[in-house]
Amino acid sequence: MTQLEAARAGQVTPEMERAAIREGVSAEFVRQEVAAGRAVVPCSRPGHRVAPIVIGSRFKVKINANIGSSRNRADSRDELEKLAVSIEFGSDTVMDLSTGGDIDGIRRSILENSRIPVGTVPLYQVIAEKGPIGWTMKDFLATIKHQAEQGVDYMTMHCGFTRAAMPLLRSRLTHVVSRGGAVVAAWMEKNNRENPLYEQFDEILAVAREHDVTLSLGDALRPGSAHDATDEAQIHELRILGELARRAGRAGVQVMIEGPGHIPLDQVKRNMELEQIYCGGAPFYILGPLVTDVAPGYDHITGAIGGAYAAYWGASMLCYVTPREHLGLPHIEDVKQGVVAFRIAAHSADIAKGIPHARIWDDEMSEARKNLDWPGQFRLAMDPRNAEKLHGEDTPSCETACSMCADYCSMRLMNDIMGGKAS
Amino acid sequence: MTQLEAARAGQVTPEMERAAIREGVSAEFVRQEVAAGRAVVPCSRPGHRVAPIVIGSRFKVKINANIGSSRNRADSRDELEKLAVSIEFGSDTVMDLSTGGDIDGIRRSILENSRIPVGTVPLYQVIAEKGPIGWTMKDFLATIKHQAEQGVDYMTMHCGFTRAAMPLLRSRLTHVVSRGGAVVAAWMEKNNRENPLYEQFDEILAVAREHDVTLSLGDALRPGSAHDATDEAQIHELRILGELARRAGRAGVQVMIEGPGHIPLDQVKRNMELEQIYCGGAPFYILGPLVTDVAPGYDHITGAIGGAYAAYWGASMLCYVTPREHLGLPHIEDVKQGVVAFRIAAHSADIAKGIPHARIWDDEMSEARKNLDWPGQFRLAMDPRNAEKLHGEDTPSCETACSMCADYCSMRLMNDIMGGKAS
Repeated sequence: MTQLEAARAGQVTPEMERAAIREGVSAEFVRQEVAAGRAVVPCSRPGHRVAPIVIGSRFKVKINANIGSSRNRADSRDELEKLAVSIEFGSDTVMDLSTGGDIDGIRRSILENSRIPVGTVPLYQVIAEKGPIGWTMKDFLATIKHQAEQGVDYMTMHCGFTRAAMPLLRSRLTHVVSRGGAVVAAWMEKNNRENPLYEQFDEILAVAREHDVTLSLGDALRPGSAHDATDEAQIHELRILGELARRAGRAGVQVMIEGPGHIPLDQVKRNMELEQIYCGGAPFYILGPLVTDVAPGYDHITGAIGGAYAAYWGASMLCYVTPREHLGLPHIEDVKQGVVAFRIAAHSADIAKGIPHARIWDDEMSEARKNLDWPGQFRLAMDPRNAEKLHGEDTPSCETACSMCADYCSMRLMNDIMGGKAS
Repeated sequence: MTQLEAARAGQVTPEMERAAIREGVSAEFVRQEVAAGRAVVPCSRPGHRVAPIVIGSRFKVKINANIGSSRNRADSRDELEKLAVSIEFGSDTVMDLSTGGDIDGIRRSILENSRIPVGTVPLYQVIAEKGPIGWTMKDFLATIKHQAEQGVDYMTMHCGFTRAAMPLLRSRLTHVVSRGGAVVAAWMEKNNRENPLYEQFDEILAVAREHDVTLSLGDALRPGSAHDATDEAQIHELRILGELARRAGRAGVQVMIEGPGHIPLDQVKRNMELEQIYCGGAPFYILGPLVTDVAPGYDHITGAIGGAYAAYWGASMLCYVTPREHLGLPHIEDVKQGVVAFRIAAHSADIAKGIPHARIWDDEMSEARKNLDWPGQFRLAMDPRNAEKLHGEDTPSCETACSMCADYCSMRLMNDIMGGKAS
């Protein structure tokens, strides 16, 4: 039985129990949300040491870090280091998007070393082996079966992009920016046929159900520019993704919906609402969104702005964007910067959503600030070493205040008046 | 006549005209907004070469960079470099918050070298000379007169923090985190008297009117933690700031209201609404706000999240927060990171607010992306050199695509299908 089938049968699985502990909620609540299709517990490896998590809008906001090789940089040690950095700074899942070198071996080594769920885009392996238009559905099904057997927990598939959407792309500034989406577009045009991932969705479901792989229905038509946000093509695909999500649910397969992309701030809330309406509350797993197009080199910030707001309005998981987005694939330091930025976004949304106990962390930090307790502030910081380093650059170790206010430290002045600890 | 008096008299000043050109609106619209108290044109130096700007919620969102010396770091060359970096990356104003070294000389040299409006917190100079509780209102008035004569365009004064607010601080986790606010608290407690900046507000107005210094009414009681956000103390002061803003308006003095601080995302919109209600639409000039307390070292990101959202809901100017916030005073690189992060926030809000033509920049960038026009992308980037550097680290100069997708570049695949420039 899949987690979804168990939940519907009224069974609380060990994975639901462990996920519930991490959330500070009852296992029964997790079961209910999974049964309703409003949450997923991606876990295709019951025998593995993966710590299960639950992804859904009523739980803590999750973040994902994309790692993986490219033709120019294909060293599995690099990818394992990116995995370690992702985990250290709090990513909830990673996706291995390798397209260069021994991609099967890199995936195996990531799976062996990851204690967090791992996702993939199986089409990347298919086209690495068969080219962008030479593959068949038989190749695709063999690949997802192979990856499921390896232990991949969730897989992105661009099943909702159909030929009917092609004319809708004409009014776009950036037609299709999803790599998988562009491959599907090229395949449909060159082979003059419908998207096989849509036509043979039932065969995909059969494999997914067998291994309890969570499907992440990819948004091939996510807008790649503010200009194209929330346009007809995007909404056309979203409606189809909603239909496919219902079919997945009927087949006992856990499902998430992937979302944009580039979305101006005033359209973010509406995008979250449309997903809820069309996709029956299935968890929304979004990329950013980026609220402006003009800041390459800083898109972790642009994405954290959109991500925080989107998560507040219901997105369940945020795929990080790194400073190198639009410029190259992330290096290890980019992975760290991306994870930290999106942890900030996710935690900010947790506070705003009123997730129980989310603000305790903040209150402890503020208490440490009031008490001028520097070791406490470093320990509680999202990135302790960086906080200690920045502070130490200016402040002689003999001083108890920072260089920020020196003689006129407001905490010190007020503790003197109010009777705080460090007057 | 001040800009406000001229506006009320139906006169369009040269400063309004120049500000209007920068906004792409009519000078008459600027005049109307200034006359209504919904916008300010901070400009106490008509003879200087300052490029006038208009600050108000119906105009482009502005950002401010705080610079200035401290006891440990007091070199005017450092401050001039921070000024240059602030201007290069697009800050609309700077505030000189110097508290160390020759603060009068540093201010003079910033004023001589700044082509953007300059603000100060005069109380810092007063306490540098007289100590936190030994100063009198005579000292304060002499200082603001002196700074106005030097050419300071706007000044922060903590006039709305009264003794009635002291008991409201008991329920706070971080009592008063504003430096000026803490000094006022200490002064009131030690001298057992009301805040003289409140009691003798008319005398402040007289000096401000004479030199057309824009008053920025400081929020001494801004929350310094998520715990204290939107609490009674904060709202108590905001109501008084609203009364003082009306008095300033009657006296012909331009006025902005300063705002928080640390505000969870779900309270940001409400905070913007409350300011509009209590302060009659006076421009809201806010610090961040920071949407979580736990990310010292990354508070430029935390603040950009809150700032973008706040500006979308009506804040007129965002004071930047740098990565070094809560840890020390910003170094030059921190100033750059802070300005870029807040430019992203401000521009994202401009797009979302529907500021005319704001998105043209984004559309040009997206067009360059579609065309794989790398020089164009660098030129249009908020930080061109950084974008080119990150891109160049991975991509051999002979390649036209980035290393991100290499053989499977979605732009290339789609241009092939759709007939784009770079197929």
